Amino acid sequence: MSNPSKSKVKRVPKRGIYEREEVYALLDKEFLCHVGFVYDGYPVVIPTMYGRKGDVIYIHGASVSRLLVSLEKGIDVSVSIANVSGLVLARSAFHHSLNYESVVIFGKGSLVEGEEKLDALKVISDSVIKGRWEEVRLPSEKEMKATKVLKIQIDEVSAKVRTGPPVDDKPDYDLDIWAGELPIVKTYGKPIADTLLKEGIETPKSVKNKIGVRF
Amino acid sequence: MSNPSKSKVKRVPKRGIYEREEVYALLDKEFLCHVGFVYDGYPVVIPTMYGRKGDVIYIHGASVSRLLVSLEKGIDVSVSIANVSGLVLARSAFHHSLNYESVVIFGKGSLVEGEEKLDALKVISDSVIKGRWEEVRLPSEKEMKATKVLKIQIDEVSAKVRTGPPVDDKPDYDLDIWAGELPIVKTYGKPIADTLLKEGIETPKSVKNKIGVRF
Repeated sequence: MSNPSKSKVKRVPKRGIYEREEVYALLDKEFLCHVGFVYDGYPVVIPTMYGRKGDVIYIHGASVSRLLVSLEKGIDVSVSIANVSGLVLARSAFHHSLNYESVVIFGKGSLVEGEEKLDALKVISDSVIKGRWEEVRLPSEKEMKATKVLKIQIDEVSAKVRTGPPVDDKPDYDLDIWAGELPIVKTYGKPIADTLLKEGIETPKSVKNKIGVRF
Repeated sequence: MSNPSKSKVKRVPKRGIYEREEVYALLDKEFLCHVGFVYDGYPVVIPTMYGRKGDVIYIHGASVSRLLVSLEKGIDVSVSIANVSGLVLARSAFHHSLNYESVVIFGKGSLVEGEEKLDALKVISDSVIKGRWEEVRLPSEKEMKATKVLKIQIDEVSAKVRTGPPVDDKPDYDLDIWAGELPIVKTYGKPIADTLLKEGIETPKSVKNKIGVRF
């Protein structure tokens, strides 16, 4: 990660993380990203699912989607992933903040074809819910045609993480104002079986593994 | 919302929402957005807090931040806000999806100064935690100088919402494969008081109002 010129964390640099392994561990906890690209001269940001493998993140969608049709041309892409884990409530308005994990990627998109395409779809599926791929009906030839898969090579990446209590200015600690953290708790709830489910089908392993999991 | 040329929902158009009131109701439920802009010819996407008032969203940050210094020049901006409320698990890999609420905004940024600046900071604060602004030490002149506030005029906006069970191809309903929804539950947890809190300070109203709230 030498000289990450675009992605260098300029504000509060001590919060910056540039080691790929650490950043990838953060990336692998999430599955929703916001992809930015330049279209017709103006910026467009679109949310979509992703999965990471090696130095690449995969995204997919309908073959005709503007996002994918634009990206397959190999244009520059910026991808933002953020998870807010709590509100940081300081004594001063100024020192209010969020606890969060944020990753920003710069790279270029390219079309995924051939054998890599099905593998990429599995990577995305695993990223959302591990093991589901093995339980379902896999894509038909027609469905594969209707789907476009893109990879974004992670040329530059950096992460920013904030944890812990608020940090106030020294004199403010004497104020009669409450301060602390308010955590945001994100869990998987109880699955809701499709009302059209055939009788006698049990909740599968992939789903059971998620119930109650905090992420 | 006549002719939203940039923001028109092209994929699964029945999921598109263009009525400002409906879209604003979605915007007001969230406080984290991903702001995209063109910097030096390449796209950059950065997560940040926001608050909405009228046809404007406000963002803020350190006066020197690249995001804010770029946006105050009045360049084009795209803002993406998304909340995933569950995994949609179909019988086929192809029909897997997410339940979500997503808003995409197109507009231009401009610097907020004068009286509007403090009001804008309150709008952002209220968006994150209503009532907190009235409990804390408000910004000093020095802190105001160190802070830049920008507004993004909502020129175009559209939302996309998906709810409900998976929709599979007819023949797949006969497969012995479980299908349904796995909700994602996001709540505010128990507040963690700062260990440096003065004795005898109770949890304030703004925080109490949030505990256990699902959003």
